[in-house]
Order: sequence, then C-alpha cells, then structure tokens
Amino acid sequence: MAHEKSRCPTGAETLVSSLAASGIDVCFANPGTSEMHFVAALDKINGIRPILCLFEGVATGAADGYARIAGKPASTLLHLGPGLANGLANLHNAKRASVPVVNIVGNHASYHLQFDAPLTSDVAAFARPVSDWVHTSQSARTVPADAARAVQAARAAPGQIATLILPADTAWMPGERASGPLPVSGVTDVSAAAIDQCVAALRSGRKTDILLRGPALTGAGLRAAGRIAAQTQARLFCDTFAPRIERGIGRIPVERLQYRADEVVQQLCAFETLILVGAQPPVAFFGYPGKPSWLTPETCMILTLSHPHEAGSEAVEMLANALGAPEVRLIGSQSNFTLPADDLLTAEAVVQIVACLLPDNSIVADEGLTSTFPNYDLLATAAPHDHLNLTGGSIGGILPLGTGAAVAAPERKVVCLEGDGSGMYTLQALWTQAREKLDVITIIFANRSYSVLNQELERVGVATAGLRARSLFDLRNPEINWVNLAQGLGVEAVSVNNVKEFYDVLSSVFLKRGPFLIEAVI
Amino acid sequence: MAHEKSRCPTGAETLVSSLAASGIDVCFANPGTSEMHFVAALDKINGIRPILCLFEGVATGAADGYARIAGKPASTLLHLGPGLANGLANLHNAKRASVPVVNIVGNHASYHLQFDAPLTSDVAAFARPVSDWVHTSQSARTVPADAARAVQAARAAPGQIATLILPADTAWMPGERASGPLPVSGVTDVSAAAIDQCVAALRSGRKTDILLRGPALTGAGLRAAGRIAAQTQARLFCDTFAPRIERGIGRIPVERLQYRADEVVQQLCAFETLILVGAQPPVAFFGYPGKPSWLTPETCMILTLSHPHEAGSEAVEMLANALGAPEVRLIGSQSNFTLPADDLLTAEAVVQIVACLLPDNSIVADEGLTSTFPNYDLLATAAPHDHLNLTGGSIGGILPLGTGAAVAAPERKVVCLEGDGSGMYTLQALWTQAREKLDVITIIFANRSYSVLNQELERVGVATAGLRARSLFDLRNPEINWVNLAQGLGVEAVSVNNVKEFYDVLSSVFLKRGPFLIEAVI
Repeated sequence: MAHEKSRCPTGAETLVSSLAASGIDVCFANPGTSEMHFVAALDKINGIRPILCLFEGVATGAADGYARIAGKPASTLLHLGPGLANGLANLHNAKRASVPVVNIVGNHASYHLQFDAPLTSDVAAFARPVSDWVHTSQSARTVPADAARAVQAARAAPGQIATLILPADTAWMPGERASGPLPVSGVTDVSAAAIDQCVAALRSGRKTDILLRGPALTGAGLRAAGRIAAQTQARLFCDTFAPRIERGIGRIPVERLQYRADEVVQQLCAFETLILVGAQPPVAFFGYPGKPSWLTPETCMILTLSHPHEAGSEAVEMLANALGAPEVRLIGSQSNFTLPADDLLTAEAVVQIVACLLPDNSIVADEGLTSTFPNYDLLATAAPHDHLNLTGGSIGGILPLGTGAAVAAPERKVVCLEGDGSGMYTLQALWTQAREKLDVITIIFANRSYSVLNQELERVGVATAGLRARSLFDLRNPEINWVNLAQGLGVEAVSVNNVKEFYDVLSSVFLKRGPFLIEAVI
Repeated sequence: MAHEKSRCPTGAETLVSSLAASGIDVCFANPGTSEMHFVAALDKINGIRPILCLFEGVATGAADGYARIAGKPASTLLHLGPGLANGLANLHNAKRASVPVVNIVGNHASYHLQFDAPLTSDVAAFARPVSDWVHTSQSARTVPADAARAVQAARAAPGQIATLILPADTAWMPGERASGPLPVSGVTDVSAAAIDQCVAALRSGRKTDILLRGPALTGAGLRAAGRIAAQTQARLFCDTFAPRIERGIGRIPVERLQYRADEVVQQLCAFETLILVGAQPPVAFFGYPGKPSWLTPETCMILTLSHPHEAGSEAVEMLANALGAPEVRLIGSQSNFTLPADDLLTAEAVVQIVACLLPDNSIVADEGLTSTFPNYDLLATAAPHDHLNLTGGSIGGILPLGTGAAVAAPERKVVCLEGDGSGMYTLQALWTQAREKLDVITIIFANRSYSVLNQELERVGVATAGLRARSLFDLRNPEINWVNLAQGLGVEAVSVNNVKEFYDVLSSVFLKRGPFLIEAVI
C-alpha cells in the first residue's frame, strides 16, 4: 500500500508530464504557495525548463516572445488572481499577436475557496478578457487531460491564449497517468475561389494592393508576395505593428502602415482593391475628434485571400503561381555608415548605426515609439533579421518579449529597442536576461519624456498644456539612470550621448555574448 | 456662438471639477492617449494634484496607502484595459483592506470600439473582480453625475473600490455643469442588542476574546478595547494583516493572529466565545494538505459586535461603557538598544533598531514577511506609530502603499519594511518618491531569496526539493543590487551588512527629510 502510494504521481506531476508530452519545454514562472507542488514536480519530471521571472508581466511577455520565434507555445506559471493580473497586460499583447501561450495559474484548494481568505479572487474572471480558452481543473484525475487540452487550445490556428486554473488540491492529490498530445487544428487551406478572386482583381486593371500579416511576412510567403508585387505592381503592406516580419538586405520590402490615422489615409487613398492576407482592414489606433476610424477609402473593395486561421503563406504562393509570377531575386548590401559631422546622438543616428552593425539573422524587438517609428525604413538596409513589434499597444512589453525570443533562439542576437518611459513598466526582465545569460542587447532611447504623449496631447486638440499636464509626460525630475537600473539587475550597461561612442560600444558588444544595455541619451 | 463654445467645459473638465467638489484632491496617474483631455483638464481646473507613477501598480497601491492614512479616497488615472490590468493586483489589496479608491480608466471613444483597434479590450471585465462599483459613462453630459456617484460609491462604508470608465469622446465632447458631492452612506450604528449580547458574553465566565479590525484598531476605539480587556480579561486580537493599527509605547497592545494555520489554531484553542469587531472569523491564509481552513475551535461561539460597515470604534466604546470599564493608562518608554556583541546584521537586529529609533507618529508599512513577521512584537516598544500591512497577499504592494501614505501625511515619517523579492514587483514607486520628495525610508531585507517559498515548499509537504525547484526561490544569481536600483530611480541609498553601520545610517536618515533606501544585507 505504502509502495503503491509512493508510485502514484501527484496531479502536479501529471501536469508537468502532460505539458511536456504535448511539446511544452519552457515555463516562465513566478510561483507562490499554491504552486509549490508544480514547482516540486518540475524537479521530478524532466522536459520543462523553468525560468524565474521577478514579475508576472515578464513571464507573460517572455512567453509571447518565445512563441513568436519558436512557433510553439511556452507555459507560464502564475500565482492566483493577482499574479495573473500582473501578467494580463502582456497577455493582451500576445492575444493581439495571435500567439500561442499556455498559462498555468494556481488557485486556492477547491475546498478552501469558500472561506474567502485574503488571496481569494475570481481567477477565471481575470483570465477571460485575454484568454481564448479558460478552464479550472475540477480534480487531480482530470489534470492530465486538462493540460493536453490547454496546449491543444493554445496551438489552434492562428495561435491562442489558453489559461488553465489549477486549484492547489488538484496539484497535490494523487493523479492519473500523464496524457499524450491531442491533435491540433492547424491552419486550413484557402479555397480555390479565394485565389481566383484575387487573381481576377490583380489582373483587372484596378489598383490592387496587398496587406500581409502572420506567416506570410516570413519565408516562402514573403518571397511569393515579392513575385506578385513584381508581376502586378501591387504594393505590399504590413500592419503598423506586425507581430513578426522578416526584413533586411535581400528580403522583399513591405511598406508599413503609419501610426497616425491621417497618414494612413494618405497611404491608402489611391486604393481601389485591398487584398487581406491574414490581416484585418486597417483602422485607426485611437479615435480622435473629427478623424476617421476606418482608414481605407469608402470605395475600396476589400477581398480576403486568407483569414488568420488559414494558411496565408501557402495561399500567397498559390496566388503567385496562379499569376505565373517568376522568382524575384533582390540584391543589396549592408549600408555603409559614415559618422556624421555632428556628433550629437539622435534617434536616427542610433537606428542607422544599428542597421549598419546588426549581425546576420538577428532579432529586433522594437518598442522605440517616437524614436524608432520615423526611422523604421533605415532597418531595411540591415542584415537579414526578424522584426518584432508590440502588437496590443500595452506599453512595456518589449523587454520581456526580447527575453523570451532569446530563450527560443539562443544562437541568435536579440536587440531590444525601447523607450525610457516604456522600459520602466517591466524592467525586471533584465534580471532574467542576466540569470539565463541571454544574448540580448537593450538600447534605451533616453529622451527623458513620454514623448508620444506630448504629441498626442496636441493631436487630440489640446493646444495649451500647462505645467500640471506637462509634468505628467516629463521624466526628467528625477532623471532615470538606466545604467544603474541595469547594473542593479545584473546586466552590464553604459550610457552614451555621442555618435562615435555609440558606434564603438555597439560594435564591441555585438562581438560578445550575453545581456548588455546601452542608454542612448538623445 | 464661438463665445458660447469657448465657455462650455469639456466632459473631462466637468469630471475634474466634480471629483474635486466631492473631495478628491489627489490623482495618482499613468495616462495615455485616451486620457489626454483629462490631463488637459487637470491644468485648467484647480483642486486635484496629479502625481505621475511610472507603472499603474504604483498608482493603485499609492491610492490605497493614501486612503488608509487620509481616511478618504484618492483617484487613479489609468489607460484602457491593459493600464487597469497593471493596477489590478494592488486594487485587490485595497479591496481586501476595505479602502476607498476612485479609478478613472480611459477607454476608446465609444464609436471607435466597434473597429477593434489593437488596444481594444473589455475594460469593465478587467475592473469587476476588484471593484465594488463599475460604470461606463455613456455621454459627456452624464460625466459629472457619474463622477459624483463614483466618489459616493467609494466612500460608502467601510470603503469601496469604484471604477469609472471614461470613453475618450465623453471626455472631449462639451459637457454640463460640474456636479456637487452626493450624500455618503457612512458607518451605521450597531444595535443595542449587539452590545447587550457582548456584555452578557464578557460577564458569562466563559472565556471570551475580541478580534478587532478597521477603525477600532485606532484612537478612541482602541483605547476602549483596552478598558474592556483590563476589566474582563478578554484578550484583544487583530488579523494577521490588519490594514491599519496604532501601535507603540502607551498604546493598547493587541495580539496579532499568526500567519501559519497551525499556529493560529494554537492561539485560538482555548476560545469559548469570540467577539468580532469589523472582522471576519479567522481562516487560514492558504489551504494545506491535512490542515484546517477554519481556525477557531468548533465549539467556539462567534458573536458580532459590529460588521465592517458599522461604527466599530463607537461600538467598542459603548461596550466599554456598558461594562463600566474605567480608563486605562499605559506607561512605557522607548526601548533602549544595546549594540549586540555579534555585529552581523539580522532581520531581528534591523527591526530592533527601527523600534529604537523610530520617530514619534511615524507610519510603518510592512511587507517584510519572513524578516519582519517573527519580529513584529519588537515594534510594540517603538514610539507611537501606525502600522500598515499588505492586506490581500498580492505581493509587492508596500512600496506604493508607503508612497501614498507619505502623500497623505507629508509631516509624518514613513518607513517601508520590504523584502528583496517582494520589492521587485513595483519598485517604480521609488521614482515617484523622488519626484515628490516624499519622506519615505525604505528598508530592504536582502536575504537574496524568496525565503517564504522555501518554507512553504516544506509546509505543503514537499520534502525533497531539487535544484530546479530551489532555483525558483533563489535571488542570488545574479544578486539584485538595491542601491543601484534606488539610485537609478533618483533615491539616495546605501547597503549595510553590520549592526553598527545600520544603526548609524538609520539614525542619520531619520534626522533628514526625503526618500532614502537602505539595503540591509541579512
């Protein structure tokens, strides 16, 4: 009997085994008491690498970055309602990127909930706004199946947020055998009719352009889009904040939709037909007094080649073939950078130097906002790289995102471009980079303000901002010292305020491995 | 017409006026685009002091601390669903403290929601789990009344979380006149029957003790509780995590319920009758395998003198009077501290030195967990002070809480006792302390681990934690350098690892004003 008992795994152990069997190999964790059995199970069962995050927003943002690069979900481990709450903002970003994530959220033992202890909350209610799938395990016996279903839900095309809530007693009670993986409903093929419709549009003589999102912005899909563009004069666009796009020398250039509604309207004003590949029709990021929300011309016909859950990359290839478009070969070389006469560091100079020095096959995670947005095109001249954006507008996600991307691709260099305001939301990511010795270079654009809000205040029609208002955008008093912050979290750092020095520092850190932060004072 | 127009206030302006008219004078803010009109209105309309926080959890935690000391709500200003999400964990704590808070959460313009722009989310769904009152303004014309109702809801006894969601167009459209304050349903008197019942119990000869929470732990209520204790031999208890309790020399001592369920069971095992004053019956913080959730003996009779929404402090006075209990005068003196022979700094030595040096009428905000909990009694020998606890178990709330308390009482010294793990969740609070020159001393107990989790792992019955599990509680690799972090956020700091130095540093910073951080390496 005692022997029997010792062989019987806990619910938590079957959870870990089942997650591992379904292909989960990383867990970004910030556990608490209710997750202790899960933690113990991580010891006993091989297959999942736990990565400690000092704040839950780091865990969820890292899971997002991991999935964007690995193409499969990581798990997070979060502590009850408040722990999940701290991770919600970056789950919002992940959801908007259609990224798969499996959240494991501990909760009170089921019988303990009725006592309304201080940490009691409606965990499922916290989860729902950001989750495509939410389930609370009812017993240790169902935990393995629940785990397999969570991964199945996360992997459903195009990628979903699955949140499994695990009452502590379902973790510590004796469980069943681990569950194997469940079949995943991957992308579905587009219909021949959708292809035909787009062929007809592109041959119609009407001005027809293409808006791409998802896998069609990478690999074979992107190359096929380039063939179509060369053959038909269609312009290729991507969203303002594409989750992932391949850029750089030799890659098909894709025009980015601008951030400001009126600028997008300018971009799109000549559109007669717009073909969507895994994208939604362009809308304004915010509503502004007297400005439009819907950004394509009213007369523009919108066709869908592929919905987000469909095989967009393959659809673009089929479309290119149907058009008889030949292969395209782009030739380019990395831009040569001449140090400008004016030595003062600007956001433009920073991006230009990054473009010039960026190692081949890097990952650029970009939340530079006012610093990087106007200089986006400069990166097209960099070595081939993946460009990742903050997708949901929930500020501060990029340091965690870059952290997760580096876990997914340890052999690739990750460069985080971050504002000094945005960076403050989840700066704890730097500690995880240091602990895991991740190869992430963080460049902080230190303009000492919420610069985007200064602009936004004018855009919403407020002409006369006084001292009280301006003080809410000003980060000068006191100045944030990013070198101190990084060092406090175990990451080597320097502050740089001239072009030559920035060039030299970046050149040298690109030759090394491990995390590093450069505060670029602009 | 143009003249007419220029005199018509925006919805945002009427919001600010109405909040101010209802007694809101502080706004802990982390605004974004959708809140720009509110920001502009803060300039135009006097009466509300905006305080910038670099993360939303700082704003909500500060509002909690402000209300605990000021006895009235502050407002927060948060940016759409994700901004609110970042503030939820500390709102959970505030809700568990029955503290009044008025959240103003911007949202997309109402007509813009349908376009499902990237920042779109179900803001009300985020708000509900932590809010007692949630409302979305439907028009600029209703904004003033909505604002007045939000403050009314927050101030309803014993204190509530009110969340007002403000679509951007209700802020920018022309509004109505500001609304005046609405009547507040304050505490209600307890019934004579409740008093009589408790008098009878205390005179019955059965062992009868009292558990106090809320205003009865301060001022006249606490003094009256002392009279009852002296007259009847009733022991006075407070919850493990009381929102606010007056302690120190000359004040009535109240026994704290322990954190661990089995220790509480020991404390309560002799109880025959328990009188609740604004408190709930004691329950375990977590459920553990084979351990009880309900902590009073099964045979213990539980009487309610006052519910949380009732006038607990007055009820205790009435009870003392009904018992004919005479005034009690406690005499004591601040403990003298003799530097121990062993110079190694320990958590106990830190708390002892704090107790010895604490200025009169200070505020101690305590989230020291394993460092301060065993040393709680030492603070009873300190000068009179308010002791604030983390009420909801949502880790990391104390740095924001101390920040808000300092805003509410600029003439009082605030001492934050914080763990090095807990402190990492919302360390951005230090920046706000520096900007506002708040008189807060933060003491970080740097034991380089999630020490409480090491203990919890054993308590849940996991005997053999291996490397992977232990790594999730270890903060050594890399070591967090709190001096760097504080300096990075504009707060002066030192690291100390021996008793003499800690004594000297604390003595000197208590003589100065403004924020300071001491990393106490223990």
